[in-house]
Amino acid sequence: MDRIAKLAKKITTPCLIENPVDLFYLTGVHFSKGRLLVSPKQTTLFVDGRYFDAAKKKLSCSVLLWDEMKKISEKEITFDSATLSYDGYTALKKYLPSVNWIPVASPLKEMRAVKEGLEIAALRKAADLTLRGIEKVISLLKEGVSEEELALEFEIFCRRNGASGLSFEPIIAFGENSAYPHHRAGKARLKKNQVVLVDVGAVVDEYHGDMTRVFYFGEKDIEIVKLETIVREAQEKAIQSVKPGIKVGELDQVVQDEFEKMGVKQLYTHSLGHGVGLETHEFPRLRFDGEDKNVILEPGMVFTIEPGLYKAGVGGVRIEDMIAVTETGYEILSNA
Amino acid sequence: MDRIAKLAKKITTPCLIENPVDLFYLTGVHFSKGRLLVSPKQTTLFVDGRYFDAAKKKLSCSVLLWDEMKKISEKEITFDSATLSYDGYTALKKYLPSVNWIPVASPLKEMRAVKEGLEIAALRKAADLTLRGIEKVISLLKEGVSEEELALEFEIFCRRNGASGLSFEPIIAFGENSAYPHHRAGKARLKKNQVVLVDVGAVVDEYHGDMTRVFYFGEKDIEIVKLETIVREAQEKAIQSVKPGIKVGELDQVVQDEFEKMGVKQLYTHSLGHGVGLETHEFPRLRFDGEDKNVILEPGMVFTIEPGLYKAGVGGVRIEDMIAVTETGYEILSNA
Repeated sequence: MDRIAKLAKKITTPCLIENPVDLFYLTGVHFSKGRLLVSPKQTTLFVDGRYFDAAKKKLSCSVLLWDEMKKISEKEITFDSATLSYDGYTALKKYLPSVNWIPVASPLKEMRAVKEGLEIAALRKAADLTLRGIEKVISLLKEGVSEEELALEFEIFCRRNGASGLSFEPIIAFGENSAYPHHRAGKARLKKNQVVLVDVGAVVDEYHGDMTRVFYFGEKDIEIVKLETIVREAQEKAIQSVKPGIKVGELDQVVQDEFEKMGVKQLYTHSLGHGVGLETHEFPRLRFDGEDKNVILEPGMVFTIEPGLYKAGVGGVRIEDMIAVTETGYEILSNA
Repeated sequence: MDRIAKLAKKITTPCLIENPVDLFYLTGVHFSKGRLLVSPKQTTLFVDGRYFDAAKKKLSCSVLLWDEMKKISEKEITFDSATLSYDGYTALKKYLPSVNWIPVASPLKEMRAVKEGLEIAALRKAADLTLRGIEKVISLLKEGVSEEELALEFEIFCRRNGASGLSFEPIIAFGENSAYPHHRAGKARLKKNQVVLVDVGAVVDEYHGDMTRVFYFGEKDIEIVKLETIVREAQEKAIQSVKPGIKVGELDQVVQDEFEKMGVKQLYTHSLGHGVGLETHEFPRLRFDGEDKNVILEPGMVFTIEPGLYKAGVGGVRIEDMIAVTETGYEILSNA
């Protein structure tokens, strides 16, 4: 069943989709501007002249020019209140005042969270290229090289090997910089015996990779090795807990408990991971006390598992893999 | 005078800024999440823990943690209704119900449209690198090369030569593809005697380049050369009209008149150009009948001038330069 039909079957109220990523998810076409009105009975795409002919050729739903929206006769329509701007909303209300516009945040998030086979295949490719890119970065480690030089080489390697772009600006952190989870690659130059944290992702066939690895350039810092051992253990336990029926929050709780037992819980300052797909950060967020904590794992969900421990002035360790939920457990996609 | 002080002097009602580009413009710091409350009396930045220490060090305004927003006692505050989502707006209203929240679309657009000397210098660098990147593309033209291969080489050249990224996904169009202004670089391969349209931009020191050039691979197509001659003439006339005091719409009118005189007006399907700076498309839009048509040119404004003519099944020509308004006329920034 195609995705539009699947959505139409799920909803009771007609639903207006205009977030470009959602439009691509439903139609397979990139529209910088377009509106898809999905209703249980029929679906119509509204576009401007630029896209009209191409859309007619490619899509099986009805395609109309922008102006035809005036004729919409639905009484109630939901809109994506998480992405539509306040001005966009007031313009809709003014344009079609007889419609009762109902806000729904990210209406496709549950549907997009459960990936189809082809989507998982693309994520596997993205993970694979990301890993090869990390290997490339490691091959270039030498005294004096800068974080941003490595970030650039990662980008070029991925682009030359089939990535359409990067999932996000690379996080490459030397030494103490690794203690800041949101550090970006900067001007810092590599010194002997520093830890190197690499958190990067390549986009392949529209799907986003996202992985983190930690390396030592020269001698290992005992304090950081201790953190690494704990993080690795916690990550393994969390991954081994993945199976259908488990709640998202429980996965983070496994890590929370492990870190508490080891007396390092206060060094864990973010959530365990996030859904990953057409965007790097998707629903659900894996956090024991977050708003998605009760989301139940289903086969096809793909998310990162990325526990980390950070000591200001010393350094940090984060290990991140991409995990798919299978019928009986899990598959580590980032495990080439 | 710093930009925050300049904004504070301009407004009568306190103004909440949270669009990341506007935050960077005002503070010089990249916040993925932050809110700046600028009022005629004082300015406060609200951030979460990640940014708190760095912001305190770098900024002269007061810096408070997110939660302190509860204590805001202003009666009226404007918010950016063009970028804040419907959900973001309702959350603000719920969080601070005693405030009268007033929508203002893109509150900084006029201020950002008039560039300072350092901004123009950065735009000149962006234009210069963009032009060098175009030269690189031209040096790689050969039978059988694909549009997307050239796009990749443009990107790598720019990144290796100081660009932090591209302004937008390159438009590289061979032959008939050039007839579609929104074509992206695709799988098409270059054949003898095709026209090559290159519309690209490099980002340097945060500022966006944006230029278009047209080349012939082999023999020139007479029909396209005719279009080119007309476009070139029209662009020159528009550029020579640039000076303080002129209205934005008048520039496009110059081109409209020229194309009408030459009998090709129906082949001109977009506006003449757009402001360019920290983003590729900024205020104002240069269009004879657009909503910005009465904006008056001031020294420091920078925009593209990019007339084009398109014949489906044949090809298209667009020539685009970046123009700064000076005290007495104009400077072509993309004129290395």
